[in-house]
Amino acid sequence: MKKQNKRDLILDTMQSLMSQNLASTATVSDIAKHAGIAKGGIYYYFSSKDEILDAVLERSYSQAIEKSWSLIQSKGLDALSKVKQIFQMCVYPDIALHQKEMLTYLHLQDDLILHHKFLALTIREFTPILTEIIQQGEQEKSLHCEFPEQTSEIIVSTLVFLLDHTLFSCKDSEIPKKLHALAIMLERSMNAPEGSFDFLFSDFEPNYFSSQVNG
Amino acid sequence: MKKQNKRDLILDTMQSLMSQNLASTATVSDIAKHAGIAKGGIYYYFSSKDEILDAVLERSYSQAIEKSWSLIQSKGLDALSKVKQIFQMCVYPDIALHQKEMLTYLHLQDDLILHHKFLALTIREFTPILTEIIQQGEQEKSLHCEFPEQTSEIIVSTLVFLLDHTLFSCKDSEIPKKLHALAIMLERSMNAPEGSFDFLFSDFEPNYFSSQVNG
Repeated sequence: MKKQNKRDLILDTMQSLMSQNLASTATVSDIAKHAGIAKGGIYYYFSSKDEILDAVLERSYSQAIEKSWSLIQSKGLDALSKVKQIFQMCVYPDIALHQKEMLTYLHLQDDLILHHKFLALTIREFTPILTEIIQQGEQEKSLHCEFPEQTSEIIVSTLVFLLDHTLFSCKDSEIPKKLHALAIMLERSMNAPEGSFDFLFSDFEPNYFSSQVNG
Repeated sequence: MKKQNKRDLILDTMQSLMSQNLASTATVSDIAKHAGIAKGGIYYYFSSKDEILDAVLERSYSQAIEKSWSLIQSKGLDALSKVKQIFQMCVYPDIALHQKEMLTYLHLQDDLILHHKFLALTIREFTPILTEIIQQGEQEKSLHCEFPEQTSEIIVSTLVFLLDHTLFSCKDSEIPKKLHALAIMLERSMNAPEGSFDFLFSDFEPNYFSSQVNG
């Protein structure tokens, strides 16, 4: 049996408290009790509950980020297929379970500081990933873009904010229309073939996002 | 002499405290003292300091919003000139003094709740303004856009976030490049003539944004 690292145990406990909607009221003692370790054991790794939350946040995205980078390396895929696969990996829950718990927590708790960190982290990590893909597309001549890095940042932040319920109080039924508008913007602004970004709205599952908000 | 409304006096006082970097520590009593009125006079209008801050926020943008709507009505201007004028009005400080104090406060204080409200308000108010302009451009055949409302929301939020120092820790020198990337995206995605959105970066004054951050 693989021995669980104590730091991971603490993060798993916090994540489980988040998914049960118990994280906002939990103290460090509560977390220790749930993890079955002494309070001092927590302070050995983290100086506060906020630090644990930050670490859960970092970990929740690290899996998707790692997978994205290894996808980037795969030789057999063209640029547009890579974008599609990464988008699906990040947006759909069965593959990216950790993110889902984090998003649920952020939406339920109205924890703006963590939310802000989450947005900044997502933009920071996914911008270089998309930049690489755009550069590959440029070589393949499937798209053309003067400012790959800046355009990537604009695209990643737009996606993050469009799919964020707390900034735009929009109905689920509005989201596919917005994603359609974005798909057209991306296709034209990067001179990509018509329909290249239609996966943004054609695969959209509204239930995923409503389940976040309604718990 | 025009008699100053007491509610406006309270808002002016709060704004003056914000610009002197005294707002975060000020109590309701401090605000009353600075305004030269009794504490009860404040509670007649506002139930808390947060409510005063919210009202300052609303007021800080109402002037720019009103001006934008009256610009929309003017018959002599084409759609692209209207976008340009509204952008300059919102971004440059001498015209939009209220916003500048608000932005300075938001950046200095790290008040995330108010910051979030500010972003949401800006997006909510300017999306219908830009939608009207895009529809006018469509009639004039200077641009073409399948989803005017959704595209407007994407553009407004992108601009708001690109110019926001707290989410993207970027250098001032990076901003014109990002605005250039956005200008190309907008021009192509709305089939507008080449260079239509170059005003986004060509008029850019880096000093405005750095002065916010450095106080």
